[in-house]
Amino acid sequence: MNFYSPPLHEMLFAMKEHGGLDAVLAQVGNEEVTDDLVEAILEEASRFASDVLAPINARGDTQGCRWNNGVVTTADGFRHAYSGFCDSGWNGMPSGTEFGGQGMPTLVSTAVLEMWKASNMAFSLCQMLTLGAVEAITHHGSEELRQRYLPAMIEGRWTGTMNITEPQAGSDLAAIRTKAIRDGDHYRISGTKIFITWGEHDMAENIIHLVLARLPDAPPGVKGISLFVCPKFLVNADGSLGERNDLVCASIEHKIGIHGSATAVMSFGEGPGAIGWLVGEPHKGLACMFTMMNHARLNVGLEGVAISDRAYQKARQFALDRVQGKTLGREGASNATIIGHPDVRRMLMDMKARVEAMRALAYYTAGQMDRAHGHEDPSTRQKAQTLVDLLIPVVKGWCTDNALGITSDGVQIHGGMGFIEETGASQHMRDARITTIYEGTTGIQANDLIGRKLTRDGGAAMKELIATMQADVESLRAAGAAEDAMLEGIALAVGNGLRALTEASDWLLAASPRDAAAGAVPYLRLCGTVIAGWLTARAAQVATLRLARGDADAAFLNAKRITAHHYAMHVLTGADALRDTVLHGASTTLGLTDAQF
Amino acid sequence: MNFYSPPLHEMLFAMKEHGGLDAVLAQVGNEEVTDDLVEAILEEASRFASDVLAPINARGDTQGCRWNNGVVTTADGFRHAYSGFCDSGWNGMPSGTEFGGQGMPTLVSTAVLEMWKASNMAFSLCQMLTLGAVEAITHHGSEELRQRYLPAMIEGRWTGTMNITEPQAGSDLAAIRTKAIRDGDHYRISGTKIFITWGEHDMAENIIHLVLARLPDAPPGVKGISLFVCPKFLVNADGSLGERNDLVCASIEHKIGIHGSATAVMSFGEGPGAIGWLVGEPHKGLACMFTMMNHARLNVGLEGVAISDRAYQKARQFALDRVQGKTLGREGASNATIIGHPDVRRMLMDMKARVEAMRALAYYTAGQMDRAHGHEDPSTRQKAQTLVDLLIPVVKGWCTDNALGITSDGVQIHGGMGFIEETGASQHMRDARITTIYEGTTGIQANDLIGRKLTRDGGAAMKELIATMQADVESLRAAGAAEDAMLEGIALAVGNGLRALTEASDWLLAASPRDAAAGAVPYLRLCGTVIAGWLTARAAQVATLRLARGDADAAFLNAKRITAHHYAMHVLTGADALRDTVLHGASTTLGLTDAQF
Repeated sequence: MNFYSPPLHEMLFAMKEHGGLDAVLAQVGNEEVTDDLVEAILEEASRFASDVLAPINARGDTQGCRWNNGVVTTADGFRHAYSGFCDSGWNGMPSGTEFGGQGMPTLVSTAVLEMWKASNMAFSLCQMLTLGAVEAITHHGSEELRQRYLPAMIEGRWTGTMNITEPQAGSDLAAIRTKAIRDGDHYRISGTKIFITWGEHDMAENIIHLVLARLPDAPPGVKGISLFVCPKFLVNADGSLGERNDLVCASIEHKIGIHGSATAVMSFGEGPGAIGWLVGEPHKGLACMFTMMNHARLNVGLEGVAISDRAYQKARQFALDRVQGKTLGREGASNATIIGHPDVRRMLMDMKARVEAMRALAYYTAGQMDRAHGHEDPSTRQKAQTLVDLLIPVVKGWCTDNALGITSDGVQIHGGMGFIEETGASQHMRDARITTIYEGTTGIQANDLIGRKLTRDGGAAMKELIATMQADVESLRAAGAAEDAMLEGIALAVGNGLRALTEASDWLLAASPRDAAAGAVPYLRLCGTVIAGWLTARAAQVATLRLARGDADAAFLNAKRITAHHYAMHVLTGADALRDTVLHGASTTLGLTDAQF
Repeated sequence: MNFYSPPLHEMLFAMKEHGGLDAVLAQVGNEEVTDDLVEAILEEASRFASDVLAPINARGDTQGCRWNNGVVTTADGFRHAYSGFCDSGWNGMPSGTEFGGQGMPTLVSTAVLEMWKASNMAFSLCQMLTLGAVEAITHHGSEELRQRYLPAMIEGRWTGTMNITEPQAGSDLAAIRTKAIRDGDHYRISGTKIFITWGEHDMAENIIHLVLARLPDAPPGVKGISLFVCPKFLVNADGSLGERNDLVCASIEHKIGIHGSATAVMSFGEGPGAIGWLVGEPHKGLACMFTMMNHARLNVGLEGVAISDRAYQKARQFALDRVQGKTLGREGASNATIIGHPDVRRMLMDMKARVEAMRALAYYTAGQMDRAHGHEDPSTRQKAQTLVDLLIPVVKGWCTDNALGITSDGVQIHGGMGFIEETGASQHMRDARITTIYEGTTGIQANDLIGRKLTRDGGAAMKELIATMQADVESLRAAGAAEDAMLEGIALAVGNGLRALTEASDWLLAASPRDAAAGAVPYLRLCGTVIAGWLTARAAQVATLRLARGDADAAFLNAKRITAHHYAMHVLTGADALRDTVLHGASTTLGLTDAQF
C-alpha cells in the first residue's frame, strides 16, 4: 500500500534535458561531481526513500505526533529513520562543504529532495526547515554563530525551524509583535509563534529556532523586524548542551494532513525571556529571510511535484490491478482492469502529463539557480538570477495548485475505495493541501510575480523569456514539425499559449495595481501552463531527434512525445481562457460591495 | 464556527426564475401548495437547519460513529436531532400523501433538502437513503409490502438503505454475487455488501434494507439481478417488530469525510440466510433501481450545491472578519479585512458565481421533474422527462465536480487556519470528496450522458435544448444587450459557449465509442458550464428588467447581474478549451500502452 518507486529514468531525463545537468557539472566548483556520482547518489537515495521513508509514511499519518506537557513524540519509526537519514549523510547533502555538507548542486539535491518529499512529505519537512535555517545562518550569522551551530545542524544532530507566523501575523509580517530586548551579548525574546513546522520533536538533541522579533527601537512595519537564533538548549563554548532555554512548545495542531510532522505553537519567554542572538543587522530580519526564500519556495513547489507523482504511482497501480466492467473497444478481453477505461486513462494521462511538466519546470529552475550561483560568467549569473526570481513564484504557486487537483484525481481513480482512509490515496490529497498555503499562499506568490517580478523591470525579464520560448517554437517547426503532426500540434499549442501570455503580460503592465492583483492568480496559472508547456515541447523535440537516431529507449521516448501532445491538447488548451480572465475578469471580481457577498 | 444561514432569498429566486415555481404550483395536484405555504416551509426548514442540524455537524465529524459488536452509535445529539426531524414531519415531506407523506413538489423539497445537506450532510444522507427506498417500494413493491413498510419509513421511525456494492462489484453491477434462494413466500439472502450508507445506526427502531441479489436461475450480468427488501427486524402482521433478521453490520469504514454517517459493511445470512421479499419482478432489480436513480442523482448533485454554499458562507465570514495586511487601492483604511484583497475577492466571487449557477441548474432540473411528473399535457410531460434524463448526469457530475474546487478554495481563503481541523473549513472539503464518487462516479455520469442521453436519439434532445438556449441569447440581445455592456458580454460568452457545445456534440455523435468515452468527462463539464451559464444569463436578464421597473431589491438584483457577468468572464471562458479537449484529446488520452504509464 505504501509502495513508492522513485522515477529515476524520468528524473535523469529532466535533470539533463531541462536542468542542463552537463552544464551545471561543468561549472567551477563541481569538479568532483561526475555523472556517475550523480547516478549513484540518485540510486542510493531511491533505496532510502522506498525502503525506509515510504513504509512509515502512512503510520505518520495515522499515529501523528503526540504532545504531552511540552514534549512531542513522533510516530513509531520516525526517530530510527531520521537517525539513518543523518548517518548516511543525507541531511547535509545540499549544504556547503565548509561546515560538513556535501555541497551538491541545487539541481542534484532537487532530485534527491523530490524523493524524500514523495516518499514521506511530513518527514522531509524536518530537513527542509533545517536547510533553511542553515542557509540563513550561513549567509547572515556571525562567524561565532556559524561555528557554533552549523556543523551539528548540517549533520542533523540538531534541527532548525523558522518562527515567523503569529496569530495576528500570517501573510502580513508587518503585524509581528514578538519582542527582543538586549541583555548583554544576547537578547531576551518573548512572544507566541504559531504554525512552527517541526517546532518540537524527539528526533534530535537540540532544536535551533530562528525567530523574527522586534527590538524596542524598531520602526513599525516590516522594516522593524530582526532575526534571532534561539536554541532549545543553550550551547556551551565547547559545543556541549547547556541549560534549557526559556521556550516551550505550548501545543501542536490537529491538521488536514502532514500528521507525521508536529506543527507547534511555540511560547517564548514565559520566564525571564528566551535567550537569543541576533542574526545579521538589527531591523534587517526580513532581508535575511529573503535569502532563503527562493530555495524554500522551490522546495515547496517541488512538494507539489513529488506528492503528485506519489499519487500518480498509487493510482496507476490501482488502475492496473482493479478488475471492473468491460473495456470499451476491447470487447472479449476477460478481466478488464480499469486502466482500459477511457476516462480512467484520461485521468492518469492528465496526472502523468502534469507531473512531468511540473518536474520539468522545477528542475529547469533548479538548474538556473546553479548557474546563478556558480557560473563563471557574471552576466550569465545575472541573467540566470533574473530568470530564477521570475520563475520561483510560478514553480511554487503553479506546481502546488496543480497538486490539489492531481491528488484529488488520484482519489477519484480509486472510486469508493479512494474515500476510505486505509486505501492511502487520501493521505496524499490531504498532505498536498498545505502546499498552496505555507511558504506564501498562491495569492502571495501571484502578487510577488506581478508586483515585483513582472513589473519591476517593465516586463523585460518576462519578454526575454517569451522571446526564448518563441525561438524554440520556431526551431521546433523548422526541425520538421510540418511533417510530424504531433510536433506540429504541440508547436501550435505552445505558440498560441505564448500569444496569450504576451497579451496578458502587456495588459498587466498597463493595468492599475488593483485590477492587476485581481488577475494575478489566473496570470500565474497562465505562466505555469505555458512555460511548462514550452519545456514539454522541448522534451518532445529531444525525444523525436533521439528516436530518429535509433535510440534504444524507444518506448520511453515515444511516451515523451505522446505525453507532451496530451499536455498540449488538455492543458495548454486552457491558455486563452486564463488570458481572458486576466483581461476581462477584474471588473466582476471587484464589482460587488462587501455587503453584496 | 458552525454557523449556517440558508440563503432563502437566493433559493426563492432560483425556485421562481429557474425552477418555474408558479407553473409547478399551478399543476393539478398542487392545489394546496400555495406561495405562502412554500415560503413558510422554507422558513421553518431554515430554522431547523441552522438551529438544530448545523450545530452538531462538526461533532459528527470529530466523534464519528462508533461500532461495537454490530451495534453502531451515532455522535452525541444525532439521535435527538433525528427524532425532532421526524416529529416535525420533515422526513416524509417529499413522499406521496398515500402513506403519510406531504407530497411536496420536487422543486420545493429540493430547496428544503439543500438546507439539510448544507447544514449537516452526513445527517441528511439518512433521509436521502430512506426516500430512495420509499420510492422503490412505492413503485415496485406489492401492496402488502407497501402497507407494511411505507408508513413507518415515511414517518422516519424506520429508515431505509440501498445494498448495492460488493467488494468486486463497484461501478460494475454485473459482478454482483449476493444470493437469494426461495423459501416459501419469502427468500433467504446471503452475501456481503459494502459502502452501505446509514446501514446500521441507533436513530430508528428498524432499518429496511433494499438488497440487490441473484436468484439461482438468474441469467449472468445485469439482467440477472433482483431486488429484495430485508428488514433488520422482521415485521409482524400488526406492524410490531418481531425477530432480528439474519443480517449484521460487520464493521464501519474510516473515511475522508461524512464521519457523522456510518458507512457499513453488511453481512447477510451468516446463519440460515436473511429473510427478504422480492420487490418487483425477478431479474428486474436494476429497472427498479433506475426508478429512483434520477431523484438520487439530483440529490447528490444538490449536495454539491449545498456543501459549496456552506463552504462559501464560512469563507465569506472569515474574509469579513480577518484583519491582515493593507488593501490595494484602499490605502489609508485601517483594519483592512481580507475580503478587500483582490485575490480573496476573486475566490469568493468564483465560489458565489458557481454556487448560484449550480443551484440554477439543479432547481431548473427539479422543476422539469415536476412537469414530467404532473403536467396535464402528455407531450409537455414527455418533453420535460427527456430534458430531465439529459440533465441529470450533468447536475450530478458537474455540481459535484465543482464542489471539490469550491470547498478547497474555502480552505484556501482561511490561509494557515484553513489547514487546522478545528477551523471547520476542512470538513466541507472532506465531506464534498465523496460526492463525485457515490451514486455513480463522474466518469459513470459522463458515460451515461454521451452513451445514452446524447446519442440514443441522435442528439435530438441536446439539439433542442441548444436551440432553446440560442433563442434566449437572441432575446437577450434583442432586449437591449447592445446598450448594456454587461448583458452584451454575457450574451457573447453564452453564445460562444453554445457554439462550443454544438461542435462538441456533433463530434461525439460521429466519433467511435472509445474516442467518445475519452472525451466524456470534458463534455459533461462543457454541458454544465454552458447550460448553467445560460441560466445565469436568464437571471441577469430578469434582474435587469426588474431594475428597470424600479424594483426595490436593487442590491440583490445588481449582484445577480455582476455575478452572472463574473461567471461569463471566469467560467464560460473555459468552454473552448473543453471543446478542444473533446475534439482533439482522444488520441493522446488513449495513446500510450499500459506499460508506458
